Amino acid sequence: MHDLPQAPPVDPLLLAKVQRVIDEKTKPPGSLGQLEDLALQICGALNQEEPEIKNAQALIFAGDHGAASNGISAYPAEVTAQMVQNFLQGGAAINAFCKLHDLDFRVVDAGVSSRVEPHPALIDRKIASGTQDYLRAPAMSPAQVQEAIKAGMELAKQAHQEERSLLLLGEMGIGNSSSAALLTHCITKIPLEDCIGAGTGQHKEDLQKKRELLEQARQRGGCPDDPFLALAEYGGFEGAMMVGTMIKAASQRQLVLVDGFIVTASALVACELCPSIRPYLIFAHRSLEAGHVHSLTHLRASPLLELDLRLGEGTGAALAYPLLLAATAFLREMASFASAGVSKTKE
Amino acid sequence: MHDLPQAPPVDPLLLAKVQRVIDEKTKPPGSLGQLEDLALQICGALNQEEPEIKNAQALIFAGDHGAASNGISAYPAEVTAQMVQNFLQGGAAINAFCKLHDLDFRVVDAGVSSRVEPHPALIDRKIASGTQDYLRAPAMSPAQVQEAIKAGMELAKQAHQEERSLLLLGEMGIGNSSSAALLTHCITKIPLEDCIGAGTGQHKEDLQKKRELLEQARQRGGCPDDPFLALAEYGGFEGAMMVGTMIKAASQRQLVLVDGFIVTASALVACELCPSIRPYLIFAHRSLEAGHVHSLTHLRASPLLELDLRLGEGTGAALAYPLLLAATAFLREMASFASAGVSKTKE
Repeated sequence: MHDLPQAPPVDPLLLAKVQRVIDEKTKPPGSLGQLEDLALQICGALNQEEPEIKNAQALIFAGDHGAASNGISAYPAEVTAQMVQNFLQGGAAINAFCKLHDLDFRVVDAGVSSRVEPHPALIDRKIASGTQDYLRAPAMSPAQVQEAIKAGMELAKQAHQEERSLLLLGEMGIGNSSSAALLTHCITKIPLEDCIGAGTGQHKEDLQKKRELLEQARQRGGCPDDPFLALAEYGGFEGAMMVGTMIKAASQRQLVLVDGFIVTASALVACELCPSIRPYLIFAHRSLEAGHVHSLTHLRASPLLELDLRLGEGTGAALAYPLLLAATAFLREMASFASAGVSKTKE
Repeated sequence: MHDLPQAPPVDPLLLAKVQRVIDEKTKPPGSLGQLEDLALQICGALNQEEPEIKNAQALIFAGDHGAASNGISAYPAEVTAQMVQNFLQGGAAINAFCKLHDLDFRVVDAGVSSRVEPHPALIDRKIASGTQDYLRAPAMSPAQVQEAIKAGMELAKQAHQEERSLLLLGEMGIGNSSSAALLTHCITKIPLEDCIGAGTGQHKEDLQKKRELLEQARQRGGCPDDPFLALAEYGGFEGAMMVGTMIKAASQRQLVLVDGFIVTASALVACELCPSIRPYLIFAHRSLEAGHVHSLTHLRASPLLELDLRLGEGTGAALAYPLLLAATAFLREMASFASAGVSKTKE
């Protein structure tokens, strides 16, 4: 792809100014730990000294994977469509968390196998009814990858028109932790077996089978260095669409809150394609999925939460969201040593 | 003290029932990780299958420490009173977080050295104007410890009358990380030097001086096995009052959200005095303070956040609070596999 936008660089003078403001707040320097780094990142991305996160939206991308027919997941493939219905009916974990935190919630049909009935919360961007089985052929054609990335970019454009300063990205797709493991391997070059975890499954035998199948896939499709080709070989429609959303969002100075292992795999691809977007990505949590620590390390990401989550569907992002609000709240509301008449350290 | 109330035991049948409900929710079993444990704990404590956390209140206990005059903190002792004023004027980090999460906020003057002017958000429970210097004498008399515990219990009683199901405990007191280090040493028997951290200070030399002073204190006061005596030797008015609040709150089936190292030291004492309260304590975060990991391990606590905080004043508790709401929200709102028509795993 030749027409990917670049993200604007963060202004170092703004960061230095905000750092001075933070150090004058009535607390020991650095004592809010990671929340101070988060505040700086938000200021840098939104290019504001006292940023406010407005109209945050959770976008849950759903798609099916041809490879799921080989039994790489503990769940049958029809669960993708069933869970999409559950999202639309408000019965999933992500619904509970979005309602709690007053987050706008949309499900994107990026490529669910079966037809999804129209619904106000559904965005129909279906590229095809599931990808090809990457054990036998590339998962997507180059044209499909382009189409998915373009659709994802359009979603970010729409969100920008709606003045959303933050997008929370989540996913649903039976088999997509396998796809993410292969992508993580291609981008990071970490051994494939270290990128494979239990996904939603729980049994040792399932994990062994998943390892064998993904090794077969790799023998067929190799380990492409080009992120675009890796996406075509092993990716999913939901994963490719998230790549487009991340890149476009960052180019518009919107923040992206990345959920778990699968969204992080899209972040790996997106950062490979457009390294300039990295300052716009916030990593919500480290999941229990074995490969997540490796992809996070590759991206030099310090996730906000470590709650042993392994659900996906944007739940980790929604749980981390209040920390972003807290980071902007302390910047906005705290007094300085001078204004509050509090003594500084004895030196 | 002979008249401490016991906390009611948690009903194992209720826990088993809630666990079954959680396992029927539309998600892979266990996939919400620590949030599921948290949901169970809240149900057990509040003795409800679908609990709601109501009227949560942040209580910030402030007190001065005689030992602070020896220079064990990076800040001069008058900062305790200055920060109390800052709390009352709404300029501290805890104010920003309580406002963000709509938490009732009260400052308790447990023993600030100087007079604090009346204010609607201030609860005056001053035992004395600061403790004695534990380098020279016990910090508190047994009568003062009793009085402080009793005052703390009355605060919990008041909160129960106001139908508060959750109390967030925080503290302010120059020198109280030193007091907490000594208490942690007495209760856990972990070597004193491993219980001592930088507190709010940042310099190596300060830390070395703190270690030497606390070692002197221990040579004077010993390492009492009795938690009540340990509190009298090294504790603070704010710490003793929190012990009372924790014990009374648990006896009334109220949850207590414990902030950082210093509140955890009070939890160590409270659990030693009344082991039955442990199921009512939720630990908000692991702070950067060196000894905190030891006290948390002693209490078999899995803190919710690890954000390298070292501020105190209840900030970690306020940041963790939305996770408690999320734990009750998924219990209340998620569909079951049966009600949503979602397939379970293939077996």
